[in-house]
Amino acid sequence: MEIKDRIIAGAVELFTRYGVRSVSMDDIARQLSISKKTIYQYFKDKDEIVTMAVQAHLKRERKEYDEIFECSHDAVEELSKVCTCMRKDFKDMNPSLLFDLQKYHPNAWNVWLQFKNEHIKNQIVNNLKRGIKEGYFRKEIDPEFLATLRVEQVQLVFDKQIFPADRFDLKDTQMKLFDHFVHGVVTEKGKMLYMKYLEKEKTINQNSI
Amino acid sequence: MEIKDRIIAGAVELFTRYGVRSVSMDDIARQLSISKKTIYQYFKDKDEIVTMAVQAHLKRERKEYDEIFECSHDAVEELSKVCTCMRKDFKDMNPSLLFDLQKYHPNAWNVWLQFKNEHIKNQIVNNLKRGIKEGYFRKEIDPEFLATLRVEQVQLVFDKQIFPADRFDLKDTQMKLFDHFVHGVVTEKGKMLYMKYLEKEKTINQNSI
Repeated sequence: MEIKDRIIAGAVELFTRYGVRSVSMDDIARQLSISKKTIYQYFKDKDEIVTMAVQAHLKRERKEYDEIFECSHDAVEELSKVCTCMRKDFKDMNPSLLFDLQKYHPNAWNVWLQFKNEHIKNQIVNNLKRGIKEGYFRKEIDPEFLATLRVEQVQLVFDKQIFPADRFDLKDTQMKLFDHFVHGVVTEKGKMLYMKYLEKEKTINQNSI
Repeated sequence: MEIKDRIIAGAVELFTRYGVRSVSMDDIARQLSISKKTIYQYFKDKDEIVTMAVQAHLKRERKEYDEIFECSHDAVEELSKVCTCMRKDFKDMNPSLLFDLQKYHPNAWNVWLQFKNEHIKNQIVNNLKRGIKEGYFRKEIDPEFLATLRVEQVQLVFDKQIFPADRFDLKDTQMKLFDHFVHGVVTEKGKMLYMKYLEKEKTINQNSI
């Protein structure tokens, strides 16, 4: 891996775990056992690292989710795989992450907003339309509205004013939110299939540990 | 009705229909066929009218919802009656209403926030706990989390950046949101009862027209 990519990967790891605000250039240098001078050879300032770290993280996430949507047999399998992926992504994620971006790094925040409002929302709309067509999701639901609601909800859970970290663990709360969202869209047939897939995912993950 | 109460009632009507920002003291005076001078005998300024209008509106809403929660046979009947009430409340409500309060009338906004975070949230928590106990709502749900989510969702739909009025009609969108929320919490038994109550509510409302 090139040194520039190593710096970005190290930054992604630190930001995810500790939030953006509390990680300094010194921390990144220390984490990678390089000098701060080396970092500045590749990046103008911390803001540039943050933007590129967000881009790199979203690129990886996009690849991961694209694979789910390409390889699933039906809309319910998509959901069950997204569920597993989210559980992994939100584990150890610092709840300050999005707030720090919004407040201190408008460039990186805009990268996130665009990804959320275009890529993620589209994937949800497609998933919901597919599920309705397959008879697994209720035909009364409005895909465009629910996709918009869904991306906003995920972001809402990061809001510490509304969901203080001492009462609402980020990962648990995101999983509860996802569970409620899924139950709000499935038909009885879809619900039974969802439970079946979740059991299967659980077995795969237990065997891979 | 005393003149002061008439002014408040008139203001509630105008604010609900047109939003707060676009209704002037002149509009209120004209609506009630009184002079502006008369209004200023009872209120210091528009901000004071707005605060008292919000208080009066929430007091009426509280009475209406309290009756629902006192007179219902089970948690599902509560929900179906809340649904009818919401359909009526959001009809003809201007989507700018909450935004105007937040931006221009912090006192009135705080009255709303307190009502939302204490009274409404508590009623939802109680409804969810009751439904779980009665076997109509899934035992896996977390009442505290879902009540917090619910009150924030209702407010979110007023956000014109996220749900632009030309694509998302306020009443329709609120009803879709409510439908998704209910389906996310009910068991199969609860869902069947909910449908039954909705049919009953529909008949009552048709007969009362």
